Amino acid sequence: MINENERIDNLECNGLKIIQNEKLFCFGIDSILLADFAKEIKEGSKIIDLGTGSGIIGILLCAKTKPSPIIGVEIQSQVAEMAKRSIQLNNLQNQFKIINDDIKNLEKIEQMGTFDAVVTNPPYKKMGTGITNENKNKLISRHEITATLEDFIQIAKKLLKPGGNFYMVHRPDRLVDIIELLRKYKLEPKKIRLVHPNINKAPNIVLIKSTKDAKPFLKIEKPLYVYNEQGEYTNEIQKIYNE
Amino acid sequence: MINENERIDNLECNGLKIIQNEKLFCFGIDSILLADFAKEIKEGSKIIDLGTGSGIIGILLCAKTKPSPIIGVEIQSQVAEMAKRSIQLNNLQNQFKIINDDIKNLEKIEQMGTFDAVVTNPPYKKMGTGITNENKNKLISRHEITATLEDFIQIAKKLLKPGGNFYMVHRPDRLVDIIELLRKYKLEPKKIRLVHPNINKAPNIVLIKSTKDAKPFLKIEKPLYVYNEQGEYTNEIQKIYNE
Repeated sequence: MINENERIDNLECNGLKIIQNEKLFCFGIDSILLADFAKEIKEGSKIIDLGTGSGIIGILLCAKTKPSPIIGVEIQSQVAEMAKRSIQLNNLQNQFKIINDDIKNLEKIEQMGTFDAVVTNPPYKKMGTGITNENKNKLISRHEITATLEDFIQIAKKLLKPGGNFYMVHRPDRLVDIIELLRKYKLEPKKIRLVHPNINKAPNIVLIKSTKDAKPFLKIEKPLYVYNEQGEYTNEIQKIYNE
Repeated sequence: MINENERIDNLECNGLKIIQNEKLFCFGIDSILLADFAKEIKEGSKIIDLGTGSGIIGILLCAKTKPSPIIGVEIQSQVAEMAKRSIQLNNLQNQFKIINDDIKNLEKIEQMGTFDAVVTNPPYKKMGTGITNENKNKLISRHEITATLEDFIQIAKKLLKPGGNFYMVHRPDRLVDIIELLRKYKLEPKKIRLVHPNINKAPNIVLIKSTKDAKPFLKIEKPLYVYNEQGEYTNEIQKIYNE
């Protein structure tokens, strides 16, 4: 079931497990928080995860929202293949399908305007910014090399039904770009949650929900703090990890 | 010095005082927070306050940043006249000038592209939204009746020098409109601070600094909490009120 450099991690959620490979890209708290942020998606919804990586978000959403089905799109064949094995390991092959392709090819593969929800944890960094001395797999996961923020938002808009929801996790320093592009593609930002390391720190993660063709009115929710003053996970984070 | 329905309030800051009239519009914590947020403006800067009301922001900035000069623009003649008396009361007539006009007429009055900073606490509500059974003075202060958010942002952009800064306080539910319009007028959002009633509440005030023609990179600062768990002002708010 597992190859060289891989390990099986327990997700502490309904007995779910996941295969990870440190040479590729291991999921972080941002994916866990996005799955929690999107858990309001109704049971039986048709969902797509753009840039699914290890499949972490899709696997968690199978437990939280019982999608019918969820499709994960991953451009890197080695990563897509690993996600498929994680899906088998959890016996989710009837609910969670993997497409190994570029998100920009989805128009030829999937029927546009048919999804209830799109989720994504896209690469955070603009091309040419930040450290780029990583291996190619990590570069593709972290930097806008194969697809830009605009590519993710544009295809999300096309995939969604009118009134469908788009859930994204990103970095607060890109919020201006994100909001401008969401408006451009008529995905109205409706809910933002900022995630702070603790109550005295600036946020380092932003969760944003937008709705296709919705009227303007943004709700910025109460902050989510990761650590308390003792340096332990807050009760809310503990609950997210264990539910 | 004061007329019917007016009172003189002490600002607890360098002995400053202000005349207010409850039938018109009394300033709130949002104006105090905006003056604090903008106190980084360099001494000797040429500043303009759009929709100056009682003159509260300009009076505080005279103490905090020693502008040269600051101009307050107020469309309501009765309010503008009251602000002038507050300026005299504080002996600030050499630093702080009032223009009683519509901000949309500023192109005919002031030289465009000459201001180092623009500050504004504009009306928060779109026309036709929210409670509108207020008197006409309060309506103009609270609703986009005589000028829209876009009017404020458009004239701010014209007034500023390249690299000049625009400081605004507003409601978080309008953040999407604000960001989209700032980008439209090449006022790049650089710093946002959200103000929360306490650590468990959603923000109800947003402070936003943008810079004319700057490169994209947004810093969302650590949150500002107004009350602590005992329901008293936090240390940071006490400091802002007393400094």
